[in-house]
Amino acid sequence: MERVDTILSGGMVVTMNRTFDVFPDGAVAIRDDSIVAVGGRADVLAQYESDNVVDCAGQYIVPGLVNAHTHVPMTLLRGVADDLRLDVWLLGYMIPTEREFVSPEFCRLGTSLACAEMIRSGITAFADMYYYEADVAASTAEAGLRGVLGQTVAKFPAPDAETYEDSLSYCRRFIEEWRGHPLITPAVAPHAPYSNTDEVMARCAALAQEFDVPLLTHISETKLEEEESLEEFDMSVVKHMDTIRLFDAKVLAAHCVHVSQHDMAILKENDATVAHNPTSNLKLASGIAPITQMLKHEMTVGIGTDGPASNNDLDMFEEIRLAAILAKTAANDPTALPARQALLMATRQGAEALFIGDITGSLEAGKRADMLVMDSKPIHNVPHFDRDPNAVYSRIVYAGHASDVAHVLCNGRWLMRDRKLLTLDEMALAEQAQEIAHRIDAFLRKREESVLSKLLAIGGIERSESFEVQVKAALRDEEQIKRLLQHPDVHILKYIHYRQYDTYFLFEDPDQGRVRYREDDLVDDSGNVISVRSRLTLTMPTKEREFNSTVLLSHSRFIADADRPLRFYREYFKPTTERELQKDRRRWHIHYQDVLFYINVDRVTDPALPGLFIELKSRTWSASDAENKADRIQRMLQILGIEQADVIRQEYLEMESV
Amino acid sequence: MERVDTILSGGMVVTMNRTFDVFPDGAVAIRDDSIVAVGGRADVLAQYESDNVVDCAGQYIVPGLVNAHTHVPMTLLRGVADDLRLDVWLLGYMIPTEREFVSPEFCRLGTSLACAEMIRSGITAFADMYYYEADVAASTAEAGLRGVLGQTVAKFPAPDAETYEDSLSYCRRFIEEWRGHPLITPAVAPHAPYSNTDEVMARCAALAQEFDVPLLTHISETKLEEEESLEEFDMSVVKHMDTIRLFDAKVLAAHCVHVSQHDMAILKENDATVAHNPTSNLKLASGIAPITQMLKHEMTVGIGTDGPASNNDLDMFEEIRLAAILAKTAANDPTALPARQALLMATRQGAEALFIGDITGSLEAGKRADMLVMDSKPIHNVPHFDRDPNAVYSRIVYAGHASDVAHVLCNGRWLMRDRKLLTLDEMALAEQAQEIAHRIDAFLRKREESVLSKLLAIGGIERSESFEVQVKAALRDEEQIKRLLQHPDVHILKYIHYRQYDTYFLFEDPDQGRVRYREDDLVDDSGNVISVRSRLTLTMPTKEREFNSTVLLSHSRFIADADRPLRFYREYFKPTTERELQKDRRRWHIHYQDVLFYINVDRVTDPALPGLFIELKSRTWSASDAENKADRIQRMLQILGIEQADVIRQEYLEMESV
Repeated sequence: MERVDTILSGGMVVTMNRTFDVFPDGAVAIRDDSIVAVGGRADVLAQYESDNVVDCAGQYIVPGLVNAHTHVPMTLLRGVADDLRLDVWLLGYMIPTEREFVSPEFCRLGTSLACAEMIRSGITAFADMYYYEADVAASTAEAGLRGVLGQTVAKFPAPDAETYEDSLSYCRRFIEEWRGHPLITPAVAPHAPYSNTDEVMARCAALAQEFDVPLLTHISETKLEEEESLEEFDMSVVKHMDTIRLFDAKVLAAHCVHVSQHDMAILKENDATVAHNPTSNLKLASGIAPITQMLKHEMTVGIGTDGPASNNDLDMFEEIRLAAILAKTAANDPTALPARQALLMATRQGAEALFIGDITGSLEAGKRADMLVMDSKPIHNVPHFDRDPNAVYSRIVYAGHASDVAHVLCNGRWLMRDRKLLTLDEMALAEQAQEIAHRIDAFLRKREESVLSKLLAIGGIERSESFEVQVKAALRDEEQIKRLLQHPDVHILKYIHYRQYDTYFLFEDPDQGRVRYREDDLVDDSGNVISVRSRLTLTMPTKEREFNSTVLLSHSRFIADADRPLRFYREYFKPTTERELQKDRRRWHIHYQDVLFYINVDRVTDPALPGLFIELKSRTWSASDAENKADRIQRMLQILGIEQADVIRQEYLEMESV
Repeated sequence: MERVDTILSGGMVVTMNRTFDVFPDGAVAIRDDSIVAVGGRADVLAQYESDNVVDCAGQYIVPGLVNAHTHVPMTLLRGVADDLRLDVWLLGYMIPTEREFVSPEFCRLGTSLACAEMIRSGITAFADMYYYEADVAASTAEAGLRGVLGQTVAKFPAPDAETYEDSLSYCRRFIEEWRGHPLITPAVAPHAPYSNTDEVMARCAALAQEFDVPLLTHISETKLEEEESLEEFDMSVVKHMDTIRLFDAKVLAAHCVHVSQHDMAILKENDATVAHNPTSNLKLASGIAPITQMLKHEMTVGIGTDGPASNNDLDMFEEIRLAAILAKTAANDPTALPARQALLMATRQGAEALFIGDITGSLEAGKRADMLVMDSKPIHNVPHFDRDPNAVYSRIVYAGHASDVAHVLCNGRWLMRDRKLLTLDEMALAEQAQEIAHRIDAFLRKREESVLSKLLAIGGIERSESFEVQVKAALRDEEQIKRLLQHPDVHILKYIHYRQYDTYFLFEDPDQGRVRYREDDLVDDSGNVISVRSRLTLTMPTKEREFNSTVLLSHSRFIADADRPLRFYREYFKPTTERELQKDRRRWHIHYQDVLFYINVDRVTDPALPGLFIELKSRTWSASDAENKADRIQRMLQILGIEQADVIRQEYLEMESV
């Protein structure tokens, strides 16, 4: 008799090995970190003895589940913002919150919290992509889980790096520090091709190859991403990455929702693997990944929960089940992705997707002792039919729940026994998480109190404060403006012709100011559009006062390039009302008696206002300067032949259309 | 102070009333079967007192969930056959098993088992369609759940009725017996338009109207169903049902996966309601119902689990979550069907879909006390963000699990308290269910032992046993056959010209016989196809013996019209190998010396065999008759000029192609 540390005895052992052996009354013998024997109970007990024989009768012994894609520290952001479009969610909430809160401590706590939840859901290995990944590694190792942990690299500033160079340096140190750890496989994680340059992607691949570690990235998650790649590079994202030889590294590509048959062939040929995230893809409306096709290409596909900020949990049972049923409708074939194959993707094939298939993913002698034990007969999973050998997979996949998991071992260590976590203090973690959540709530609440802080949160804003003297008036005819421009005191510096399409977001509280989204179409003499520019302006309530029959305006404005669609800003700012304004604007920069003025001649087309309008304005810095310029404006009005009665105080938005 | 029976106190009360009131520190006062008050804890406790004040701090108090479509007795068939196409699943497994096992006792046990699972998942009301619905009602009432229970009516024989007339009579008695029950609403459930005639559907509608009870049915579950309706009636299923005035009854239509905008308008106009079953629709590859569109039409849509034989559980949390995330990808809009709306469909709107919205579905004074209490802070659902008032719905929908449910009350009665069921004995139910499962396993195993019993299970089979004398030979030219047909002893009775497309299913054990799927295309003189017929033949191993230089064959055959596609039989019989055979067959029925013979002249085109073949055969009943006919065959061979050497013993399938 050979002595071992532990024998799990009497349960149905679902090995997920190459021959899919199932031992209805089986046993698993464990010594140190590894499985020594798997087989029928009588056979195993005839050969091995242990002081720890654990009775698993009425339970299934299953390989620990492999979560092929997640962002564990984001567990601290679970449910912070839901039912939003991807860009609003990401740029409006996730990134600003991460910029403010993500720290080494945040990542440690979030990882520990996630590990607690993952252990309860039977997960023993996961692939992660986040910041401060060395801290993710420390907490993962402490919790006792197996992790393939990718340090994020992106061309944008990140919570843990000002530049991608810093990320790469951090990543190199992280790999050097953690490689060879029994639980942790460090990895390089360029966020995505669209959030990096080709050079950065290539440098990440080189780094991964140098240390022979995996490279994790997001590929082809959204249709937009594919469309932009086709536009910019004239090829798909996968093809593009192939041309820069990204796949020379061991690549685990998350999502791959919009890949073509040709893309699949490229991925297969390069032994790149895929993490399928059905809940996240559905919830963010990214689409349905062609999993059945990938499996026909004999690709290695795992299943992932994605981060809990977009799922909103780390429940692999839900994910496996959804993968199986979604594939059927996607392939229009209810025999597609049967239960056994879905469970395979979450175990042995999942481990292969993470490039750790040699040590985990199935219950086989010699592999690490990573497994879960789950109740086979909760009320939601009875009765049992045994005629079909696939029925056990069907029970686990279609009716198994995370709450059925009773024990979890990883690397031979008990992480949960009889539903009690042994390496983590759940209550303490939940309390600490709640403290951070309160701080995040306060941060977002304060931000949402004002339109300005919401605007500042998305970045790229310039503040511009100014005082202007200004007058606006109706014109009777074009002749008036000609008279002014041809006047000997006037010197034209510049002439521009625009068509301007403004959308104003107005808010209940006028003190919030208002947001203007303006598209400026620059047109040539023939009226053809030469260039288009979109800008976003937050105008705080403007203070006006009369000044020598002219208006003195004091502006406080925040201006940014509007590099996202109008729809984004609408969903992000949630205005109370919205107003459109379209006009044709001719604009002159002139010197009048050697003083700079701007002249706008506008025809307002929507809402359609009768006639032409003229604005005369100039920046000003002091009361005497303002007085001086107001005088000159009065003189120009005389040249234009405009009476005081023609002067208009209203804004275009306040005027009645014809 | 007013005395009440029970006060749930201190939890966050999520009322789901018209104004979506949420009381973060709330209370619900209950007397008899009804809610007396809902509000802030302090307010409720200031007005009401009770000996039973239940502390619900750290929990959510939510309306009991409404399962809008299921077949509860099928809980006993959970996982019996999975990953199959709808017709194989239904016709190959469900119907034969139901024919054999469904009885009043089966329905009582299955209902009790389902109620146990549903209570654990927080369900307090459900809509059911099955057989022996009076027994479903008895068990439901005993378990203490609320049911809208539809007695199935179909044009086919059912486990509880030989004819639809019997079903209608049963249904009338059922309604008379159960109407007015505090928990049970009896209903009429014509299975589907395609499984009934228009007359039966109309009679069901009349019965439902007579008693003012709901009518439950399946509508537009599959694309095939819509296509067949368009072909047969030149209109959609919904439009067709509108023309026979089905919607004059209060109709709850399950599925509605393939409905058009026009169909939705019809349903809305008639106040018909819909049960959306996302898991079942995905798993059976039926498609994705256009829920977002339905909601735009302001239709009343509930969410259902469907039966556990196609789900495979009765977990409404999974269903609500899937409904919410699937709608987003279906609408290509991540803001579609936000969490609050999804929960609404599973509570107040679900109750309205069942036509019991006046008494349940939300927590409001005056409504019945139907509610669940769930833990708000399990490890998979922390931390909490409170900035967004919708966050609580997001937590319940996107990360809530059935296992979070701690208490359930229905009609003021405690059904589960601290996760202990109070009206049902789970262990006993599970044991009894397992006994039935063992019997079903044995039945199916026995059936699957032989191809014959599988064939018999799907019905419509005729047995034909016969003895034949037969000879087959190669022909050198057409002249030979002319000589025979023009011979004075030959009288031609009938001539037919076919093209035959055979698919043979062969099995590892040849004693199983083999199945032939034959398509006979009858062709006219110009070679045009006049008619097509498909037949299925199981040929048991044929006994052959030499008989006067002729072969005597003893056949045992089972023949049926093949009214399902080849693919169905392939997936159902799962043959070891499959062979194709195509031939052009001219067939004569002749009298030769006043004895009936059949002559086949075949050209085998796939696999391509050289030349022509002739078969001469006749049925026989006795040795002397066989001897007599063998003699005649020898004489005909002489007329044909066929030598004994030209006689072929092989079957076409055994011959080598050119």
